[in-house]
Amino acid sequence: MKLYEMAKAPNPRRVRMFLAEKGLLDKVTRVEIDLAKGENLSTEFCNKNPMKKVPVLELDDGTCISETTAICRYFEEHYPDSPKLLGNNANEKAIIEQWTRWVDFYLFLPIGMGFQHTTDYFKHRMNPIKEWGESNIKAATEFFDFLNQHLQDKDYIAFGRLTAADINAFCSVDFGKVVNLRVTDAYPNLKQWYERMKALPSAKV
Amino acid sequence: MKLYEMAKAPNPRRVRMFLAEKGLLDKVTRVEIDLAKGENLSTEFCNKNPMKKVPVLELDDGTCISETTAICRYFEEHYPDSPKLLGNNANEKAIIEQWTRWVDFYLFLPIGMGFQHTTDYFKHRMNPIKEWGESNIKAATEFFDFLNQHLQDKDYIAFGRLTAADINAFCSVDFGKVVNLRVTDAYPNLKQWYERMKALPSAKV
Repeated sequence: MKLYEMAKAPNPRRVRMFLAEKGLLDKVTRVEIDLAKGENLSTEFCNKNPMKKVPVLELDDGTCISETTAICRYFEEHYPDSPKLLGNNANEKAIIEQWTRWVDFYLFLPIGMGFQHTTDYFKHRMNPIKEWGESNIKAATEFFDFLNQHLQDKDYIAFGRLTAADINAFCSVDFGKVVNLRVTDAYPNLKQWYERMKALPSAKV
Repeated sequence: MKLYEMAKAPNPRRVRMFLAEKGLLDKVTRVEIDLAKGENLSTEFCNKNPMKKVPVLELDDGTCISETTAICRYFEEHYPDSPKLLGNNANEKAIIEQWTRWVDFYLFLPIGMGFQHTTDYFKHRMNPIKEWGESNIKAATEFFDFLNQHLQDKDYIAFGRLTAADINAFCSVDFGKVVNLRVTDAYPNLKQWYERMKALPSAKV
């Protein structure tokens, strides 16, 4: 199987960290796609993912799967003996999915929008709207507060153990640095959790 | 179980249609929350969903689950004998999740942003940015094109049968009317699929 990614981008990192925690990282051959050079815009790549995003998982039969959580779901279901990170039962699966979506919509997406609309990084492909970017950075900051409150007296986001919710949140929190949003002492619970996550070997893959 | 919703909003509709197709609609007691009146901003509701959105599923033990797809996942996993709408195996589950996310990020979200930023509906709670709204309506229109192409010679989005991908897409396509995006003859394949979906009894619940 091939995993098309840009190593330093946050979504591919979420997949790698998920695979590392499951002991499945060696199941994929990593293929680097340079977004800055627009390699994701080629016809060949668009045939793999019409949305032009990384990561994409290409199975040996040529089937391509896009979207981080869909790729994670593939491995969770295909390797049932690996550590379960998306939940053990209906209730857990739903709560973990709720959290991964909260992180996607209220943290990851606002950070991405904040970055795209307050910098010139993608200006050759889009028209940045500074006011929109700033409103998103504010929203992401509010989610830092929310997460900090939620993590009071908790080692992990849900069910007292590491799940995909933590991996998703950790990679997204780390992504915050692109808009200068950092885990300072103003977020003591978040910081403790962040340091615990950062110390995992899977955080470095 | 209680399902907090606003009946005419598109995300609660996705949950109802999903439940109806599974024959599980009678499992929930529906509770109407009036977003226009700000009932979702009350402390009581925020304790159920800190993100202040509908739908929310409240289990009999008081556990609350937010996010449409997480609620759908709960029912899919909890009632394994009901028709499977999220896939029968790892490959199907991943592809259907890919599609529901594509629809969420490239159709539903842009329509919502387009509506919020080109109308005054939420102006007491946010600052609409018209340019951003228009850019999102353009993006949603492009996804109509993409979906129209994808549906050539296909009755359903994936695996030749009705899945959550179709339900998600149908409710999102219908939601397009709030930004005057409609399934015209310019989208013949989309239109055929749309009429097929619209004829389902579950489209009316």
